[in-house]
Amino acid sequence: MEKTSTDAFPFTMNSSEKQETVCIFGTGDFGRSLALKMLQCGYSIVFGSRNPQKSSLLPNGAEVLSYSEAARKSDIIIIAVHREHYGFLTELTEVLKGKTLVDISNNLKINQYPESNAEYLAQLVPGAHVVKAFNTISAWALQSGALDANRQVFVCGNDSKAKQRVMDIVRTLGLTPLDQGSLMAAKEIENYPLQLFPMWKFPFYLSAFLCVFFFFYCVIRDVIYPYVNSGKDSTFRMAISIPNRVFPIAALTLLALVYLPGVIAAILQLYRGTKYRRFPDWLDHWMLCRKQLGLVALGFASLHVLYTLVIPIRYYVRWTMKNRTITQATAKREDPFSTSTAWLSDSYVALGILGFFLFVLLGITSLPSVSNTVNWREFRFVQSKLGYLTLILCTAHTMVYGGKRFLSPSSLIWYLPSAYVIALIIPCIVLVIKFVLVLPCIDKTLTRIRQGWERNAKPTLNGERYLKQSSVHLDSEL
Amino acid sequence: MEKTSTDAFPFTMNSSEKQETVCIFGTGDFGRSLALKMLQCGYSIVFGSRNPQKSSLLPNGAEVLSYSEAARKSDIIIIAVHREHYGFLTELTEVLKGKTLVDISNNLKINQYPESNAEYLAQLVPGAHVVKAFNTISAWALQSGALDANRQVFVCGNDSKAKQRVMDIVRTLGLTPLDQGSLMAAKEIENYPLQLFPMWKFPFYLSAFLCVFFFFYCVIRDVIYPYVNSGKDSTFRMAISIPNRVFPIAALTLLALVYLPGVIAAILQLYRGTKYRRFPDWLDHWMLCRKQLGLVALGFASLHVLYTLVIPIRYYVRWTMKNRTITQATAKREDPFSTSTAWLSDSYVALGILGFFLFVLLGITSLPSVSNTVNWREFRFVQSKLGYLTLILCTAHTMVYGGKRFLSPSSLIWYLPSAYVIALIIPCIVLVIKFVLVLPCIDKTLTRIRQGWERNAKPTLNGERYLKQSSVHLDSEL
Amino acid sequence: MEKTSTDAFPFTMNSSEKQETVCIFGTGDFGRSLALKMLQCGYSIVFGSRNPQKSSLLPNGAEVLSYSEAARKSDIIIIAVHREHYGFLTELTEVLKGKTLVDISNNLKINQYPESNAEYLAQLVPGAHVVKAFNTISAWALQSGALDANRQVFVCGNDSKAKQRVMDIVRTLGLTPLDQGSLMAAKEIENYPLQLFPMWKFPFYLSAFLCVFFFFYCVIRDVIYPYVNSGKDSTFRMAISIPNRVFPIAALTLLALVYLPGVIAAILQLYRGTKYRRFPDWLDHWMLCRKQLGLVALGFASLHVLYTLVIPIRYYVRWTMKNRTITQATAKREDPFSTSTAWLSDSYVALGILGFFLFVLLGITSLPSVSNTVNWREFRFVQSKLGYLTLILCTAHTMVYGGKRFLSPSSLIWYLPSAYVIALIIPCIVLVIKFVLVLPCIDKTLTRIRQGWERNAKPTLNGERYLKQSSVHLDSEL
Repeated sequence: MEKTSTDAFPFTMNSSEKQETVCIFGTGDFGRSLALKMLQCGYSIVFGSRNPQKSSLLPNGAEVLSYSEAARKSDIIIIAVHREHYGFLTELTEVLKGKTLVDISNNLKINQYPESNAEYLAQLVPGAHVVKAFNTISAWALQSGALDANRQVFVCGNDSKAKQRVMDIVRTLGLTPLDQGSLMAAKEIENYPLQLFPMWKFPFYLSAFLCVFFFFYCVIRDVIYPYVNSGKDSTFRMAISIPNRVFPIAALTLLALVYLPGVIAAILQLYRGTKYRRFPDWLDHWMLCRKQLGLVALGFASLHVLYTLVIPIRYYVRWTMKNRTITQATAKREDPFSTSTAWLSDSYVALGILGFFLFVLLGITSLPSVSNTVNWREFRFVQSKLGYLTLILCTAHTMVYGGKRFLSPSSLIWYLPSAYVIALIIPCIVLVIKFVLVLPCIDKTLTRIRQGWERNAKPTLNGERYLKQSSVHLDSEL
Repeated sequence: MEKTSTDAFPFTMNSSEKQETVCIFGTGDFGRSLALKMLQCGYSIVFGSRNPQKSSLLPNGAEVLSYSEAARKSDIIIIAVHREHYGFLTELTEVLKGKTLVDISNNLKINQYPESNAEYLAQLVPGAHVVKAFNTISAWALQSGALDANRQVFVCGNDSKAKQRVMDIVRTLGLTPLDQGSLMAAKEIENYPLQLFPMWKFPFYLSAFLCVFFFFYCVIRDVIYPYVNSGKDSTFRMAISIPNRVFPIAALTLLALVYLPGVIAAILQLYRGTKYRRFPDWLDHWMLCRKQLGLVALGFASLHVLYTLVIPIRYYVRWTMKNRTITQATAKREDPFSTSTAWLSDSYVALGILGFFLFVLLGITSLPSVSNTVNWREFRFVQSKLGYLTLILCTAHTMVYGGKRFLSPSSLIWYLPSAYVIALIIPCIVLVIKFVLVLPCIDKTLTRIRQGWERNAKPTLNGERYLKQSSVHLDSEL
Repeated sequence: MEKTSTDAFPFTMNSSEKQETVCIFGTGDFGRSLALKMLQCGYSIVFGSRNPQKSSLLPNGAEVLSYSEAARKSDIIIIAVHREHYGFLTELTEVLKGKTLVDISNNLKINQYPESNAEYLAQLVPGAHVVKAFNTISAWALQSGALDANRQVFVCGNDSKAKQRVMDIVRTLGLTPLDQGSLMAAKEIENYPLQLFPMWKFPFYLSAFLCVFFFFYCVIRDVIYPYVNSGKDSTFRMAISIPNRVFPIAALTLLALVYLPGVIAAILQLYRGTKYRRFPDWLDHWMLCRKQLGLVALGFASLHVLYTLVIPIRYYVRWTMKNRTITQATAKREDPFSTSTAWLSDSYVALGILGFFLFVLLGITSLPSVSNTVNWREFRFVQSKLGYLTLILCTAHTMVYGGKRFLSPSSLIWYLPSAYVIALIIPCIVLVIKFVLVLPCIDKTLTRIRQGWERNAKPTLNGERYLKQSSVHLDSEL
């Protein structure tokens, strides 16, 4: 945009005199950034400041007045002042009556105050309509065009007209307003920018525990046992060999844990004979973080793939192969080719590749922009049908990996079975229960329950219960 | 959100008395979920029910009345009842006059009834404004916050004011309304949640056919022929070796089929001497599913990469290499190093990697959220220029793979050429035609046709035809 | 949508008589496509044409009139005519007074005219409200449903009511309007569809330079030197071996360049003692293309991974290993196993895998749809904390790769050190400075500066400066 064009076509700006005036209390960083952006989008800006003369660094075109003078100029006042300094607003109650106050403040920690800043503001200035907005947007994002940043602005407030006007401003600034309801939602909105992946906490700690446990389990079997038994130093195995056992175990276990709450829910519904009773809280929470569990599992599976593919590059592997060849060459002895070993080795690898491929597909469809383009039937097809297929392939991959050694006593070390045997427990449980659940007789009962039928209830009186049966079925199935 | 905050600041809720009242007919699952969500967003809810006394499980704060009483309380009535039970609405025609009826129903199969449910409703209650909405949203998504789910709500209706009000409600619930026009679109909207990847059907069946055909083709050459000829059991090749021939063939063929309709369209336009005649339907459909064809091809290419990278891990490969080394060591004979073989082997691999890399780039730019951030010129650059470069690299990769054996008679088995030779047919045709089309003389004619010039037409009278020439050029080019 | 349904329910269409009429000047490709789409969405369309009788190919349902007659029928007139033909509009000034003119035109090159087409239009028809819109949408996307295409429509104009009406139309067509402010933004909007990845230019040229430089550097060391010294032909190394040195070097250098501007900015702020002075322009531009730099680096890292994983498949590698084995077998000599080499080799690989894994995570979170679901704190955590961890892992990977040879004089060829030693310079500088910056004493000062404290300033008078301190801290940190 060339500034000179303004001179060349002076009337271009003439017709914009109808532009709305917005008042901003406070001349801090965020107030100034917001003012600059609003000026660019055609608003008039009046700053309210304690010391209008001393305010500096303000964007060109903005006026600076005292608080009460500035407030009189506009119906919408953005409060760009820290909560601790809200006190001065009580003196302005008269001026602010009926105006829209936009609370944009954030706190330094979650639940810092008993009530949200916006509710506190509404208390201080009873006659005004308080709207919470803009607190999730950063000053830097506003200034730099916000192209990469989160454009969602959560908005809440009790007065729907005031809220609507603020949402219009948000839209004009090129951001996306999300109406969150009444001012009671302000607390959640204020906590939002302070959160650090709350949905990922359980999957993260669970997978950290799994990794640590299986790491030491494998260290005992693969490092300490050979050292104790034959004094062999295998510590170097801790860099690749052991992680490459831990990661697939973690991946398979977490993937099974994605589908376990679904079968538990089905058992509960069968046992209770109704779907109209809430699940226990732990089950609800578990079901809500299945996506995160699945993605962490995908991360481990990807690491397993990379660790596996570098095997032939490793010094240890090349050294072993070379020496084995030299030994045999010296002894002039050739191994006979075993077709069954070739079958086992190839199908183990093929199952793993196909399982991983489907797993990546599942991950891609869970990207927000992709899942937004599929309908519920498609989403369910991918996440449920393809998901179970992935679980089956990965479980089979692990079983065939065991091959002939599977459960053989010779693979026990200090009475400890191989780690992959332990990894198979949860997936097998899930698959067996799921297999029972899809048996026609049980599936029929379950479907009826999910369509609203209750074992111990009078027959329903009208058709309302059955509405949306397909989507409900689908949901509980997920 | 803490409930106690309501007590602490009683006036917080006072000003929300202006909230809109919405009536919901039917107390089924979806009606209740919608009511709960709307209550959270500040609406008042009145349920209409046949048996107001017997309705249970309703969310706190919602009133339950008889149908006619409930309808009188609100201008917007959401019909959360199955189509089969719409009958009772005819008795309420008087009460519903001028009101907005929101049809949210779904069917159990595509085109279940001759007319859409919404049109049927409009017929039953002639005086009301029927709007179709919410049918693509699931009850579970509404309850659980809908963060992962598809937030798009398709809306259609004949009365634009009624439609606008419903779209405002959709926006307030944090969902994205998409105006689909008049009520004639209702049938499509009702079919939408029942669809299962309609655009993927043709690519899926095509690739399934390609896979099966080439699988058996390779089985004949690599398993049956050695068995017949020398009694050798090579069945284990069906796990990895043969899929790793089938997948790259399918990938290359499908990738070429992405660009074939474009060159056919260009030939048609050159032949007809105008762009103002519709393409045959099959060509239109083919062009619309190019993205899906390309993504399926990318899937096969990824599988090919994984299958190739595991080669050195396979028992068969390690056994072969070891025995060959032992044989040579026993014979005390060393192969001389062949620079030309090294060149062939390395450039074949390098071409494959670069082709796959570009292919993945193409896949990433086809993600909805990425393609939304590029303009048409950039999208065309990636999909057309980079796309053809990918096709050239992958074709070259396949040709160099053949290397010295390419088309040599010794590689014929039972008169069947190697599978990769067949895979090269379509890509080579596409590349040759494309090469002819970009020759200056032909390209010039084609560009003029795409800018609106017609071979057998009077010269155009004004400049309108030439408007948007660049973007049109680009589109047909894709 | 079945046309027959219109006959079956004649009243379905009756109530849509309130539909808005839109006038389109010009019957070219884009005008017709827009008309078709608008008709589908329930608008009435009137075309204005110089020769109403001769216009052909117009969509059913649209009327064609002379310019002035058509203009009288609607308040909104879409000018689908090339800028060169705008002349005739001056004759219609009287008719167009007070109406909304939508300029949808594009140019053939960036900054083709001194003023934007929309501003030129506003000059020609002084009494009308000119709104710029739709120029980024392609005719083909409108016709084919636009599902894959960019749905963003940039809108700007001086009259906010006219702009609002146009944005409503955009929304009704299922597209996303983005308000860009006054008509002064039209130039930028008109340039937008002509841009070709402007943000990627600097990263692209920089990485091209890095690749070319290091390619020739490696050619000198690995191809020319052996040829000059011993007449050995190693040209085949240019296909894989040398790219596989160039790519990781480019990746590591670019990754370090992502974090270099951040530490330079911190040093500048420490030196100046304030954050209230603008950074030099080159630093600003550099900071704005960090995402692109990082993604290019990720591309090179991915290529490095693929090139590394195919190593055991290469003829040269297999030949070398086989011959070394044969030589040793003939000599009946076995290498002893070196635990320290195993440790070095395995940890070098493991560091690389973990670094690449985190790098891919960074890439995924920079997808627009993913970054839109995280708040600033989470975004900063990923991009800053995980980003530095990636840089540390990749730098360590390169250092351990050097292992015992690192900086040893024997690896100098013609006084040139190994390429990877050069690659380590920038990452080490960044990491050392960053390490100094996070020392408590310096970090404290920096944090105070970023919270608004100024070394040479009077103490601030009120709390405004401190508002949003957390997000500001975060921004400068990124």
